[in-house]
Amino acid sequence: MGMTMTQKILAAHAGLSQVVAGQLIEADLDLVLGNDITTPVAINEFEKIGIEQIFDKAKVAIVPDHFTPNKDIKAAEQCKCVRQFAYAKGVENYFEVGEMGIEHALLPEKGLVVAGDVVIGADSHTCTYGALGAFSTGIGSTDMAAGMATGKAWFKVPSAIKFVLSGEPTKFVSGKDIILHIIGMIGVDGALYKSMEFVGEGLKYLSMDSRLAMANMAIEAGAKNGIFEVDEITLDYIKERSKKPYTVYKADEDAHYDQVIEIDLSNIRPTIAFPHLPENTKTIDEVGNIAIDQVVIGSCTNGRMEDLRMAREVMKGKKVARGVRAIIIPGTQNIYLQAIKEGIIEDLVTAGCVVSTPTCGPCLGGHMGILAKGERCVATTNRNFVGRMGHVESEIYLASPAVAAASAISGKIANPEEVKGE
Amino acid sequence: MGMTMTQKILAAHAGLSQVVAGQLIEADLDLVLGNDITTPVAINEFEKIGIEQIFDKAKVAIVPDHFTPNKDIKAAEQCKCVRQFAYAKGVENYFEVGEMGIEHALLPEKGLVVAGDVVIGADSHTCTYGALGAFSTGIGSTDMAAGMATGKAWFKVPSAIKFVLSGEPTKFVSGKDIILHIIGMIGVDGALYKSMEFVGEGLKYLSMDSRLAMANMAIEAGAKNGIFEVDEITLDYIKERSKKPYTVYKADEDAHYDQVIEIDLSNIRPTIAFPHLPENTKTIDEVGNIAIDQVVIGSCTNGRMEDLRMAREVMKGKKVARGVRAIIIPGTQNIYLQAIKEGIIEDLVTAGCVVSTPTCGPCLGGHMGILAKGERCVATTNRNFVGRMGHVESEIYLASPAVAAASAISGKIANPEEVKGE
Repeated sequence: MGMTMTQKILAAHAGLSQVVAGQLIEADLDLVLGNDITTPVAINEFEKIGIEQIFDKAKVAIVPDHFTPNKDIKAAEQCKCVRQFAYAKGVENYFEVGEMGIEHALLPEKGLVVAGDVVIGADSHTCTYGALGAFSTGIGSTDMAAGMATGKAWFKVPSAIKFVLSGEPTKFVSGKDIILHIIGMIGVDGALYKSMEFVGEGLKYLSMDSRLAMANMAIEAGAKNGIFEVDEITLDYIKERSKKPYTVYKADEDAHYDQVIEIDLSNIRPTIAFPHLPENTKTIDEVGNIAIDQVVIGSCTNGRMEDLRMAREVMKGKKVARGVRAIIIPGTQNIYLQAIKEGIIEDLVTAGCVVSTPTCGPCLGGHMGILAKGERCVATTNRNFVGRMGHVESEIYLASPAVAAASAISGKIANPEEVKGE
Repeated sequence: MGMTMTQKILAAHAGLSQVVAGQLIEADLDLVLGNDITTPVAINEFEKIGIEQIFDKAKVAIVPDHFTPNKDIKAAEQCKCVRQFAYAKGVENYFEVGEMGIEHALLPEKGLVVAGDVVIGADSHTCTYGALGAFSTGIGSTDMAAGMATGKAWFKVPSAIKFVLSGEPTKFVSGKDIILHIIGMIGVDGALYKSMEFVGEGLKYLSMDSRLAMANMAIEAGAKNGIFEVDEITLDYIKERSKKPYTVYKADEDAHYDQVIEIDLSNIRPTIAFPHLPENTKTIDEVGNIAIDQVVIGSCTNGRMEDLRMAREVMKGKKVARGVRAIIIPGTQNIYLQAIKEGIIEDLVTAGCVVSTPTCGPCLGGHMGILAKGERCVATTNRNFVGRMGHVESEIYLASPAVAAASAISGKIANPEEVKGE
């Protein structure tokens, strides 16, 4: 019986020739990830297990990215706990402030995830690495503890929805617009505990950064994971960054999909998710006049080079509108450095943006741009739930970096095509 | 009867030909300053006064620099309150996130303070502007409210200590070392309610950035204000930045000083203030082996170009020690931009530093680098009181940017001369 991409990866990691949707399996893990919020809880559980060492010093990654540089004493204590554990256990992939970044931007950049891997992370957006043709999914801190101890995790094999992408997106449409379009179509529970598998000739128009943004938001449709068929773009990305062996898994011809959805990328318009759910999408042509107070360009969804380049393209030579705070958060130190070298940071600061250290920051209401009562933010982040970025009466509009940049310039949600006059 | 520099400025602003120490006077204000912490309280008081408009839209400056970009909902609400007031009253010098910086770095840069001015600010380090030959001092939020309403403030005329500077400091000795040396000598109440007036041929070796750092910390010796005799360096700085008329006040030959202290700058060593008071100074030769967890280079004391250039000179081509977080906080957006253009930010990030948005941040335990229990920080900030930067059992060592940078590289308090091999 044919298997999906996801099923083939899970089967291989469970030592089975065949798995079927709904089956419970135990799979070997290639990487176990935690951050400064979830790892302290996992450490506590790990210590209860009574095992002295982690299963593999090279296969645990800890990235203190949420409330760093330490937002407050509690954050400082959590980071200290994580740092001491990492040092004591010899965690090779512990990243200190100054060498780190947002976990889901950092790990692909560091070559720590490759095609065919099974990755768990105590962070819901761990699904990001599906862009590399890996199976990766978010788990809780207890599973992280067990994973660090045993190198294994239990999974219920997911069924899948196949998204067949065709056509070339227009200039200001990127992965973020596509995934928002999809979530708008299927809803926030549209792929509940399923794989979202992305295939089709349209892939060749999607950069790795766009794919990472799309896989990142699979969880916002309720999916267990999002995963892209591996192509030359994927392999080029991996070979440039990693010495790890990789394996390309293609879905079988006769794999079963619960649903097959065809999407013509050339028809997708810049898309915005209105408060308070990622499924509340409108195209840029439908938004009306929405004045804003803040723009955030960053997060594990959209803090990569493509995103910063697009923000610069839209904002260069213009000025952030009066009364708008425009906050740029490069995903990693390397992305920040590259953006400096390309003159992007200079152009964005000249336009009136502030540039943050890499952090999840405002996305989860942590710090670095929290909203007051009644304030509205256009954010390239991934969730616009009530109170997510601050006051319960604030509003978050999820959008691409191009739309966010255009909105910063306009002081209201704006079309990058119009701001650029293209 | 002769008057000090400070007394002459106050007399002129009170419309008096003569004032004496201890006299109560009412002086006209050239600038009234507030930040995101103190201005909401002042606004509340202002509204009680029942006056509709501020005394002069050009003479009030509001800089939301402490907890921005908004650290949390409370910070967001405070900034919103301040922004609404600034818009409603037509405050010309309200600076939004993206166009602002740390107040005491920003105002001189923007040319808002010149020689001979009287400035009050609802922030204790308002004394910074004494570097420009102005009388400036920190006041409470109620005085800020009254100042915004009337353009006047009551002062008790201070007596003064004269510091006669001579000699040329060695390469890695800057204003910060000199003021720490002085505070170590006279104590944190050594200049209580007095003016610290800096004169002498040694001034010619002190850049404006070094003078700003020194005047900034006058309050740490308990002084009412610190003030520098105006020379060509001052006038060049002012003319480059401001169109405001300025007046140079020189102390009378027969002015009375409570004390005259002569300081040979060539004898001053890099100086560090140990926990928990700025007066607990040791020279770099006396510090011993103090391992550290964090370095902060920034604040209203040391976040200017000279400071960043020195940090780069010490750190370029080296790496931040394992386990140390090195946080760079350029004082303003313009300083940040200039540091990018000079390649400083690139070098510091390559060395392993993170670069923050301009904010007071960790200096007052606000955010952006708070300390856990038992952690030690070398900081270019101005106060090392118990718990100032986080946990009550953390420790702050005040130092120059050169010492801070050397310490980041060494993982312990270190001599920049040795780290640079000079």
